[in-house]
Amino acid sequence: MDVRAAVAFEAGQALSIETVQLDGPRAGEVLVEIKASGICHTDKYTLSGADPEGLFPSILGHEGAGVVVDVGPGVKGLKKGDHVIPLYTPECRECKSCTSHKTNLCTAIRATQGKGLMPDGSSRFSYRGKPIHHYMGCSTFANYTVMPEIALAKIRDDAPFDKVCYIGCGVTTGIGAVLFTARVEAGANVVVFGLGGIGLNVIQGAKMVGADKIIGVDLNPAREGLARQFGMTHFVNPADIEGDLVAYLVELTGGGADYSFECVGNTTLMRQALECCHRGWGVSTIIGVAASGQEISTRPFQLVTGRRWQGTAFGGARGRTDVPKIVDWYMDGKINIDDLITHVLPLEQINEGFELMARGESIRSVVVY
Amino acid sequence: MDVRAAVAFEAGQALSIETVQLDGPRAGEVLVEIKASGICHTDKYTLSGADPEGLFPSILGHEGAGVVVDVGPGVKGLKKGDHVIPLYTPECRECKSCTSHKTNLCTAIRATQGKGLMPDGSSRFSYRGKPIHHYMGCSTFANYTVMPEIALAKIRDDAPFDKVCYIGCGVTTGIGAVLFTARVEAGANVVVFGLGGIGLNVIQGAKMVGADKIIGVDLNPAREGLARQFGMTHFVNPADIEGDLVAYLVELTGGGADYSFECVGNTTLMRQALECCHRGWGVSTIIGVAASGQEISTRPFQLVTGRRWQGTAFGGARGRTDVPKIVDWYMDGKINIDDLITHVLPLEQINEGFELMARGESIRSVVVY
Repeated sequence: MDVRAAVAFEAGQALSIETVQLDGPRAGEVLVEIKASGICHTDKYTLSGADPEGLFPSILGHEGAGVVVDVGPGVKGLKKGDHVIPLYTPECRECKSCTSHKTNLCTAIRATQGKGLMPDGSSRFSYRGKPIHHYMGCSTFANYTVMPEIALAKIRDDAPFDKVCYIGCGVTTGIGAVLFTARVEAGANVVVFGLGGIGLNVIQGAKMVGADKIIGVDLNPAREGLARQFGMTHFVNPADIEGDLVAYLVELTGGGADYSFECVGNTTLMRQALECCHRGWGVSTIIGVAASGQEISTRPFQLVTGRRWQGTAFGGARGRTDVPKIVDWYMDGKINIDDLITHVLPLEQINEGFELMARGESIRSVVVY
Repeated sequence: MDVRAAVAFEAGQALSIETVQLDGPRAGEVLVEIKASGICHTDKYTLSGADPEGLFPSILGHEGAGVVVDVGPGVKGLKKGDHVIPLYTPECRECKSCTSHKTNLCTAIRATQGKGLMPDGSSRFSYRGKPIHHYMGCSTFANYTVMPEIALAKIRDDAPFDKVCYIGCGVTTGIGAVLFTARVEAGANVVVFGLGGIGLNVIQGAKMVGADKIIGVDLNPAREGLARQFGMTHFVNPADIEGDLVAYLVELTGGGADYSFECVGNTTLMRQALECCHRGWGVSTIIGVAASGQEISTRPFQLVTGRRWQGTAFGGARGRTDVPKIVDWYMDGKINIDDLITHVLPLEQINEGFELMARGESIRSVVVY
């Protein structure tokens, strides 16, 4: 079938809106009509060419929401008309990772997903007879896509696509890091480095579980207002601090953060986030994705004296299990997504969404079909 | 009173056996007759002058066992005749750290202990009228010492001093890292870097809790026999491995270690220990103390994909609570200490103990008084 898609033909170039061909779902696969898709920094990172694992041509986009249109043989849990959110981290519930109950990083289709292919090793997308790569197993910058059943979370029918698509990545990554990875408890002091889309979701996650001090750190003073609205109690602009930022944060938290989160992808901030943690028990969680080849460092004494360093992907959320819950939290008013979606654009203006992000003018832009 | 002590007058010099003066216990303090003391790498590190926090002159030693001889005013939990193990990590049960229930790193007397002084800011030891520093709050290289009550674990009376002194540091550090810090569970795969005194105790801790594969990594093939006796199931000599050690260990563990432990103090090994952990859940615990100024590094991707990096001091054990339990485990035959104590020396031969350690000929030398 013909579908409309924003195609990334080459690294560093703008996306091109084209009509491409999509094959129907094979065994275990589902055809989804994408209704909305957020534009995430990871899409930008891959498009820039900086991602060594980036593949071209491809159809980017991994933060969508839509409706099941057709199912292939053997699909048992989804049917035509179901509302779904695509999952770049699937949940097969059968692999060693899923059955460990210790991680959300399902490995069932990791090898083919990394190659831009469906689990059977082929692509469903093509353009003028030549295959186009899938992206993060999702490719939500097309108005139809094909996904494995294990990579789709079934959600309630009354949730608005143009809002809950953000749960497909940013919301879950931020809130999940607090709830599922760090397991922040009521009364904890939390420091959040970076008040973009992820950081704001970390803040509302920390507020949701009853954290005491929720300290946001950002060089951009324009972020303060929205962050306070989401639950931030203290704003720290490193440019305004005389002396050492880590020492300042340790003082502000009365000995160090119980939990810190790095939401930028900057290895210097990752180190500061660890070192501002409380001696004995502070836990620092890396959410941001650093540029290829960069390394984090610290003195081992930081760990020997009780700080812990960890990371999270997709907020530690098990997609099919947790994403529907987060949709419920949004529908119940427990979390705020509306104020984070600053721009809504038609597919034809998708490049404008990338520019807004590059200029720091948007929190999240959403493409609607 | 006059006591016999091995005094460290200057960095880099042999210890000098002297008669020094010891003042009696003040409020909250206890006079202990030391019956035996292990010689630990940390004593050697400080004596070498490499420890930037090392103080001289001082009486080293922090791995002792003895008997209460006298108590100062206000001491409630100990009385003359009680058998005790000195604790370089005290347990006051009242400070922010102790009451957090999240760390063993009691901070009640940290400031003065770091200065080589008793909690009131003075030293009890002197030589020819000039004060001598305490060391790690213990100074067990003297046949009598004064300790704060909160830094003494009361143990059973039938435990042999020349064995259970080792629980004052090495045994607890190794076994505790497994039980209290990493909380290794039955069936886990464990990799241990370094098969010295700490590593062998990690191995017997892992065996005690029912680990499956217990893999020891050491360049010294002479360690293999004893390590197998303590529970090691696989020996890996990096010198015998073609190619990448991390990849080899990931293969050997069927995907990576559930838990790894660095017991050497080498930052390169610390990185390997992290990176040989299983994607999604592997936890690496740093036990070894790196040389001053050295740093650990890795790609943040290692953490974002689910590995966790942490450290431990005194095995995460709460001294007054856990040390008596470990003494019981030894007396009940659940752990083996006897085969780790390779040399027993009188105080006059203490420098020989340091030489045995430097040459790698001893696992543990114990000084008896």
